[in-house]
Amino acid sequence: GAAPAIVHAQSAVRWRIASSFPKSLDTIYGAAEVFAKKVGELSGGKFQVSVHAAGELMPAFGVVDGVQNGTVEACHTAPYYFFGKDETFALGGAIPFGLNSRQMSAWMFEGNGLKLMREFYAGYNIMNFPCGNTGAQMAGWYRKEVKSAADIKGLKFRVGGFAGKVIERMGGVPQNIPGGEIYQALEKGTIDAAEWIGPYDDLKLGFNKVAPHYYYPGWWEGGLEIDLYINQKAYAALSPEYKAIVEAAAAVAHIDMQAKYDARNPGALKQLVGSGTKLARFPKDVMELAFKESMALYSELSAKNPRWKKVYEDLATFRRDQNLWFRFAEASFDDFMQAQKL
Amino acid sequence: GAAPAIVHAQSAVRWRIASSFPKSLDTIYGAAEVFAKKVGELSGGKFQVSVHAAGELMPAFGVVDGVQNGTVEACHTAPYYFFGKDETFALGGAIPFGLNSRQMSAWMFEGNGLKLMREFYAGYNIMNFPCGNTGAQMAGWYRKEVKSAADIKGLKFRVGGFAGKVIERMGGVPQNIPGGEIYQALEKGTIDAAEWIGPYDDLKLGFNKVAPHYYYPGWWEGGLEIDLYINQKAYAALSPEYKAIVEAAAAVAHIDMQAKYDARNPGALKQLVGSGTKLARFPKDVMELAFKESMALYSELSAKNPRWKKVYEDLATFRRDQNLWFRFAEASFDDFMQAQKL
Repeated sequence: GAAPAIVHAQSAVRWRIASSFPKSLDTIYGAAEVFAKKVGELSGGKFQVSVHAAGELMPAFGVVDGVQNGTVEACHTAPYYFFGKDETFALGGAIPFGLNSRQMSAWMFEGNGLKLMREFYAGYNIMNFPCGNTGAQMAGWYRKEVKSAADIKGLKFRVGGFAGKVIERMGGVPQNIPGGEIYQALEKGTIDAAEWIGPYDDLKLGFNKVAPHYYYPGWWEGGLEIDLYINQKAYAALSPEYKAIVEAAAAVAHIDMQAKYDARNPGALKQLVGSGTKLARFPKDVMELAFKESMALYSELSAKNPRWKKVYEDLATFRRDQNLWFRFAEASFDDFMQAQKL
Repeated sequence: GAAPAIVHAQSAVRWRIASSFPKSLDTIYGAAEVFAKKVGELSGGKFQVSVHAAGELMPAFGVVDGVQNGTVEACHTAPYYFFGKDETFALGGAIPFGLNSRQMSAWMFEGNGLKLMREFYAGYNIMNFPCGNTGAQMAGWYRKEVKSAADIKGLKFRVGGFAGKVIERMGGVPQNIPGGEIYQALEKGTIDAAEWIGPYDDLKLGFNKVAPHYYYPGWWEGGLEIDLYINQKAYAALSPEYKAIVEAAAAVAHIDMQAKYDARNPGALKQLVGSGTKLARFPKDVMELAFKESMALYSELSAKNPRWKKVYEDLATFRRDQNLWFRFAEASFDDFMQAQKL
């Protein structure tokens, strides 16, 4: 039988999201569009969200200021871009030798991750929701072969945010360049190497055309979380129902981004290798030096930044336990599968 | 300014979910409760869902009949339990040497998985949503040591659904027993071995008290997807807004279950090992025989069940590409991390 229509407590809302990414990337930029679409569907069209590419409303790296000041209601970005404001930002995205994608989600949703990061973000008028993960990334494109850790010395390397601090300690020269501007810098030779994410995006951005060597793993991004940062006042103004809509739409987008990267990377990798890209694992001494310098950096930061220390210590304990567990069922299943002729 | 309140197109709805799991498991049973809670929040309390433990409304393995006949609007279950109706059910949950958790989500949401499974489920009046994943599972609890594949012969083994067909080909005697009834069977010695999921659930269910040997990996469940099966008429009766609510609430629950297992398994594993559990990797010949028999079984099924063939072939291609890609960035990052002193 037909029950009577019930009056909605919440009225029409319009939000703008400033993305740090170029519109061409249907993976990482696309997740914000998925979020916007779902918010519309869940609210019966009453809560409208528009997404704006990097540079449209503000520069790629200006989006935290935009949210903090209330210029836009929200942004969709990689937390570690903002390590210059406070290194603690990086812990909400990815740090060198941090968590992989599943571990990051577990820390956020079931560990203390989301709680601790929200405490920190409150200082920037930000309420956040995890809204995508890239999975473990490739280590990027190099004009020259990397034979040993010595080859990092003097390397002008575009690397995402916080990882630059470790590259610097290894003798490299990190460059923080937004995704939409990397190709030109690499083509012109302003930089010697550049990393973005992985095969699908990298092929779209055309890096294979200007650098032949493609290394893995991206030890600075075992599972980069992308976040939706929301201005606290804009969030507080929502009804409980619309708050639930924001959370659920972000969950759909969170799944969507990882699924897109996982589903689309294999085909792109085959295309890259087929067109001459030289795929290689980073030499062991690069990994070991990077690990050593990362751990030294984290100790130094813990000694001088109490916000970092509080969050990092929790993440480090979680990371230790996760790696203890993942080596059993997960690793032995994956190892076996990867060794089979399928 | 206050905009006028807007009338909701959708009226009150009440659904019942029959779970195949016992209420004590806050991981796998809990995901249905998360779903119910989110549906309530997203609808401002107008769409109410109640969750019922295995046996409360119908037996654990009777839930598909219940949804098909419309006795309940939905159930929350492991697809492979129903391989006796049609082996194709198993492909929606997990098959031996199938996909891991991330790969399964990628196949469902970005590959053809969800589309193909929905075509198949339509024959049972079912519309489905992925609603949880356990991650790679442990291989379970054995009263006696498994030294080689010969020790599987004659083994009375409780194993989840479809995997029993491979165990049988290896000479074992599979038993399909609901989660809530395994402990008693193992304690009484009605069975020689039993697997459930992993450390957190297994510790709760007390298997360590009645069998000392704990093996990995559970090669039959690299990433078991748990589904919400919805009666098609009940689903069709929803407004577009409530359909979006079901999808988004299922996404929240999908993330929640994997995060709970990942966050809670490490501590439970430490407790188990601390209390005397003997953790061991399955001998190589067990894995190899199981793989060989699984592939032979899949060929046979493809020859006689066209529904299986259609879905399996798509999954197999996806699996080949996923394992090609995951061996690079993902595996090399995880390997390195698991080898470090953290």
